Amino acid sequence: MNTFNETAKGVYLITVTPFKDDGALDLESTDKMVDFYLDRGVTGLTILGIMGEAPKLTADESRIFVKRVLDRVRGTVPVVVGASAPGFAPMGELTKSVMDMGAAGVMVAPASTLRTDDQIAAYFDMVNETLGTVPWVLQDHPVSTGVQMSTAVVMRILKNSPHCVMFKHEDCPGLAKLSAIRAASDKGELKRVSILTGNGGGLFLPEELVRGADGAMTGFAYPEMMVGVCDAYGRGDVERAFDIFDAYLPFARYEQQQGIGLAVRKHILAARGAIASAAVRKPGPKLSVLDLADLNRLIRRQEKRLAELNLN
Amino acid sequence: MNTFNETAKGVYLITVTPFKDDGALDLESTDKMVDFYLDRGVTGLTILGIMGEAPKLTADESRIFVKRVLDRVRGTVPVVVGASAPGFAPMGELTKSVMDMGAAGVMVAPASTLRTDDQIAAYFDMVNETLGTVPWVLQDHPVSTGVQMSTAVVMRILKNSPHCVMFKHEDCPGLAKLSAIRAASDKGELKRVSILTGNGGGLFLPEELVRGADGAMTGFAYPEMMVGVCDAYGRGDVERAFDIFDAYLPFARYEQQQGIGLAVRKHILAARGAIASAAVRKPGPKLSVLDLADLNRLIRRQEKRLAELNLN
Amino acid sequence: MNTFNETAKGVYLITVTPFKDDGALDLESTDKMVDFYLDRGVTGLTILGIMGEAPKLTADESRIFVKRVLDRVRGTVPVVVGASAPGFAPMGELTKSVMDMGAAGVMVAPASTLRTDDQIAAYFDMVNETLGTVPWVLQDHPVSTGVQMSTAVVMRILKNSPHCVMFKHEDCPGLAKLSAIRAASDKGELKRVSILTGNGGGLFLPEELVRGADGAMTGFAYPEMMVGVCDAYGRGDVERAFDIFDAYLPFARYEQQQGIGLAVRKHILAARGAIASAAVRKPGPKLSVLDLADLNRLIRRQEKRLAELNLN
Amino acid sequence: MNTFNETAKGVYLITVTPFKDDGALDLESTDKMVDFYLDRGVTGLTILGIMGEAPKLTADESRIFVKRVLDRVRGTVPVVVGASAPGFAPMGELTKSVMDMGAAGVMVAPASTLRTDDQIAAYFDMVNETLGTVPWVLQDHPVSTGVQMSTAVVMRILKNSPHCVMFKHEDCPGLAKLSAIRAASDKGELKRVSILTGNGGGLFLPEELVRGADGAMTGFAYPEMMVGVCDAYGRGDVERAFDIFDAYLPFARYEQQQGIGLAVRKHILAARGAIASAAVRKPGPKLSVLDLADLNRLIRRQEKRLAELNLN
Repeated sequence: MNTFNETAKGVYLITVTPFKDDGALDLESTDKMVDFYLDRGVTGLTILGIMGEAPKLTADESRIFVKRVLDRVRGTVPVVVGASAPGFAPMGELTKSVMDMGAAGVMVAPASTLRTDDQIAAYFDMVNETLGTVPWVLQDHPVSTGVQMSTAVVMRILKNSPHCVMFKHEDCPGLAKLSAIRAASDKGELKRVSILTGNGGGLFLPEELVRGADGAMTGFAYPEMMVGVCDAYGRGDVERAFDIFDAYLPFARYEQQQGIGLAVRKHILAARGAIASAAVRKPGPKLSVLDLADLNRLIRRQEKRLAELNLN
Repeated sequence: MNTFNETAKGVYLITVTPFKDDGALDLESTDKMVDFYLDRGVTGLTILGIMGEAPKLTADESRIFVKRVLDRVRGTVPVVVGASAPGFAPMGELTKSVMDMGAAGVMVAPASTLRTDDQIAAYFDMVNETLGTVPWVLQDHPVSTGVQMSTAVVMRILKNSPHCVMFKHEDCPGLAKLSAIRAASDKGELKRVSILTGNGGGLFLPEELVRGADGAMTGFAYPEMMVGVCDAYGRGDVERAFDIFDAYLPFARYEQQQGIGLAVRKHILAARGAIASAAVRKPGPKLSVLDLADLNRLIRRQEKRLAELNLN
Repeated sequence: MNTFNETAKGVYLITVTPFKDDGALDLESTDKMVDFYLDRGVTGLTILGIMGEAPKLTADESRIFVKRVLDRVRGTVPVVVGASAPGFAPMGELTKSVMDMGAAGVMVAPASTLRTDDQIAAYFDMVNETLGTVPWVLQDHPVSTGVQMSTAVVMRILKNSPHCVMFKHEDCPGLAKLSAIRAASDKGELKRVSILTGNGGGLFLPEELVRGADGAMTGFAYPEMMVGVCDAYGRGDVERAFDIFDAYLPFARYEQQQGIGLAVRKHILAARGAIASAAVRKPGPKLSVLDLADLNRLIRRQEKRLAELNLN
Repeated sequence: MNTFNETAKGVYLITVTPFKDDGALDLESTDKMVDFYLDRGVTGLTILGIMGEAPKLTADESRIFVKRVLDRVRGTVPVVVGASAPGFAPMGELTKSVMDMGAAGVMVAPASTLRTDDQIAAYFDMVNETLGTVPWVLQDHPVSTGVQMSTAVVMRILKNSPHCVMFKHEDCPGLAKLSAIRAASDKGELKRVSILTGNGGGLFLPEELVRGADGAMTGFAYPEMMVGVCDAYGRGDVERAFDIFDAYLPFARYEQQQGIGLAVRKHILAARGAIASAAVRKPGPKLSVLDLADLNRLIRRQEKRLAELNLN
C-alpha cells in the first residue's frame, strides 16, 4: 500500500481536469481518467495543479472535482491537492476542506512576489502555521512562480517544516539541488523527504533517479513511460530505464512546449479514451491542423520505436 | 445622484478591508469605515482591490464583506467591486454574485501573463464575453500586474467593449496616455469613458485633472485631500487644488511606499477612528517604532501646513 | 556559394568563444574551432551571441576574436555578428567595425525593457536608422530578452526593415509564428526572409523544417546533427531527418539545460578536439562529477544509436 | 577635504551626460555642468550611472567623458564611476582605466540575472576579485536591476568586501534595511560604511538622515535641495531640513517619474544654464507641450514657496 510520507516512491501523476466541449466540468470523464491513470500503475495522484487548470475553476467546481476524484480512487493511492493560494485564509480553507474529504495532503509553491531567502523562509513559516499537521509537498517550480529557491533555502524550509514530507524538484539548471538535498539527508544533516521530480515535465527523469530521486510527480499523456522508467530503474535495469525514456522523449519534448502543452496532453488523453473531450478552458491554447500533423507523425514514430524495443 | 457610467466624476475611494487584531473580518468597522468615507464626500467606493487585501479573503468572507458594504452604503454612492481573477469562471461567478447584491459594476485588470498587444486585446474579448452587460472599469496597473498596456491597446479594448464605462489610469511614465485617450474621445474617434486616476496612489492628481481626468480612484488615509483637490479644480480654482495637494504630499509620498504603504494607511485610519484595528493580514507589513516616529512627524507638520492654508 | 540574404539556407552555427584554462582568449583554438565547424558542413557562422559569452569580452577582445574568425573563414561561408547593445551608439560602432573586417551582417534582439507592440516597433525603427544598409537578422529570443514579439509585430518590423534578411525564430509556444510568417511571404503579403530556427536550441528542428523554416541557427556540440537533418529533409527524406534528430535528442535535451548548457557544450567540443579547453568565463557554470557521469552515459548511448542507424 | 571612504558624508550628485542637439557628446557643457554642481556644494560626483545614459555611450565616449569630468574637478571632490557590466573582463578594464585617470572609486550593482542570496553573495566575491583594492560602492537599486538584496545578504557582502566603503541604499519598502545596517555597524557587528541614499531619487532623504544615513547619492535638477537638507540636518535643524525638502517635493515627485524623468531633469538643467541642450540620446523620452506646462507651473509654485521660506 502506497502512503504519502517521506518514503513515497514511484509516480504521482498530475492529472488534468476534464471539461466537456462546452467548458462544463466533466464528471464522467473524471472517473474514466482516474481509472486510466490507476490502470497504468501510478502510485499517487496530484490534482488542482497548474496543469489541472485549477485557477479556472470556481470554488464549488474545485470541491466537486476533488470529491469525485477521491470517491473514485477510494484510497487505493494517495491523492495530493494543490493548495497554493495568494492568501493564507483561502489556503487554510481549501486544505481543511480537501483533508476532510480524504486527501492525503496538499502541495504548496512559494508566492510569486517572494525574492530573498529570508522572504521565502518566512513565507513557509506561515504556511506551516496555516497547515498545522497536514502533510505537505514543497513545490519548486520557478518557471511558473518566478521564484528561485536555492539549495540553502530549501534545506532551511525543510528543517523548519515538521510536516513537509515531499520535495517536488523542478528547478533548473542542472540536477545539483537534488543531489545536494539527498546527500544532506543521507548524511543525517537533514530529515529525509521523498523527492519526486517534475523538471521540465519529467524531461530528466532517468538522470534524476540516478541522483537519488524517488520518482516523478508530473503529467504526461503516456503515464506508462514514467511508471516503466521507475520500475526498470527500481529493479536495477538502468539501460532499460533509459531505453524506455528515450522512446517517448520526442513526444515528451513536444508536449512540454509552454503554451500548447496542455492542449497536446488533453488531445492524446482524449484519443486514448481517458477523457471524452480535449477541451481546455479559456484562456487556453488550441491545436492547429499543423500541430495535429506533428502529433500524428510523433505517435506513429513512437509506436514504431516502442515495437522495436518490445515495449508496446 | 452619482451614477456609475461614462460621465462619472469625483473620488471613487479604494477602501481597505478592516480586520480585528486577531485577523478576523471586522464588520462593525466596515460600517464605521463606510460612514467615514461617505462623510468626507467621496462619490463612489471601490472594494476588494489589491489594497483591500482581497486575495487574503476566503470566498465566503468576500461575499460577507461586499454585502456589508452595500447594505451600509444603501445606494447613496455606486460601489465597484474588483473582479480580476486567474480564470473566467471565478470572475463570472464573483461578478454575478456581487451584482445580485447591488454592486454598480466591477473592475478588471489584465492577467499577469499577458505580454503582446494581441494577447491583451484577446483577453479583454473574453472578459466582455464573461461580464455580458455588466458595466466595468478597465484597470491599468503595471506595478502590480507587470502588464504594460500601450495607448493603442487601451483604445482597442475600449472600442471592443460596449459596457466598459471607466478607465482607471495608473500607468507611468508620464501622463501621455491619459491625454491621448481623452483627446480621442473629444474628437469623436472613441466613445467617452470616465477616466479616474490612481497613478502612484494619486501622486499626480492635480496634473491629471489638468489633462482631462474626471477624478481619482485610489486609496489614501485622508480622502478629504482628493475630494478637496477635485472640488477646487471643479470650481476653477486651480491654484487652490495644487495648494491642497501639496499640503498632503509629504504624507501621501510616505504612504505610497510599496510594502509598508497599507500598514501606514490602516494605522492612520485606526488613529482617525475609521476602523478599530490597524491589523493587516499575513503576509503583510508591520510598522516599526521608527516608522511610527516618521508618521508622527509627518502628521504634525501636515496639520501645521493645513492651518497655514486654512484647510483644517 | 552561400550568401547571407533572404534565400539563406542550412545551418548557421552559433559558435562558442574559446578560452584558455586561465580565462584568456584562445586564438589557436579559435582557428581549430572554425575548421571543425566548416568540416561538418555548416553554411554560416554566428559569433558573439549570448552562448558566445559576448558580454564577458572586453571591446578589444571582441574585435580580436571577430577578426580571427573572419581571417580563418576567408569568405567560404558568411559570418554574422551579434550586435545587440543597450544603446545605438555602441551598436553602430560595433557594426561598422565588424562590417569593415568582412562580416556578412549583424544580428539584433529587442532590448529587454521593451513591452508593448509600439515600443518594439519603434525600437527597430531606430535599429534600422543605426544599421543603414547593413543586412541584419531579427533575433526573437524571449527566454533571454524577456520580450515577447507577437506575429503581428514581427511582420510590422519586417515591413519597416528593408535590410532585414533573416528571422531567427526562437519563440515558444508552438510553431504558429513560423507558419504565419512563412504563409504571409508565400502569399506575397510580406517580403520573403530566410527563417532559421533556434527554438530551445534546435529542439524542434525537424518540425520547423516541415513548417517552412530554411534551416537552423543555433549552437550544439554535434553540428553534424543539424546539418544531417537539414540535408535529409532537403532531399525529401523526412523520416531520415527525424531519425537523425531523435538519435541526438537525449543529448541535445541535456545540453539545452539553462545554466549548465554552455559548460556541457564546451566540454564536448574540447573532448572532440575542437577547442583546447572547456573553460567558461565567470560568472559561469562548472560541471560536477555527477554531470560528467551523465554525459558519459549519454555519449555511449548516442554512439550505439547512431551505429544502429548507420549514422556514425 | 572630502575623501571617498567609509566616513563620506553629504551629497554625491549623480550627473547627467550632456549631449548636443545632434546627439554628440558635449564637452563644453560637461565643464559647465561640473562647475554648476560644485558651485551648489556637492561633496562628490557620480558619473556613468543609469541616469547618466552610460549604456548609450561608446567605449571611447565613456573614456573621454570621464577624463573631461576628472580634469575639471581637479580633485576638489571625489568622483565615483559606475562600473556595473555584464562581465568581469569589461568591469575590470573600465575600472583600471578610470582609476588611472584619477577616479576615487567605482560603483557596482548586482547583475540582473541574480536571484538567490547565494548567487548574489557569490557574484560580489567575483566583484571583489575583479576590483582588487579599488574602493567601491555597493549599489542597491531593485527598480532597475530587478534584484532584491535582503538586509542579510547586504551584510554578508559587506563582511566579505574589505574595500567596499559605501552602500548606496535605494531599496523599498520602508527604511528598515538602512536602520538595520547602521545599527549593526554601531554595535560593532559590521564595519562602518558610508550610507548614501537614492531611494526613489531622494524622495525620502530627510527620513533617511533621521535613520542614520550620511547623505544622498542621487540626481536632481536642484542639487541645492539635497545640499540644503543635509546641511540643515547636520547642524541639528531638523525642521528646517524637512521644510526645504517639502518645498522641492512637488517638483522632485514629478522628476522621479519613470521614463520621462531624465528628460525633465535635463530640461531644467538646460534652463538653469548648466548644460547647453536638453537632448537625451535615443531610445529616450521627449517632453510634450503638456509636460512643459506642468513644469512651468511647478517651477512657479516652487519659487513662491521658497520665497515664503526665505530659501531663494
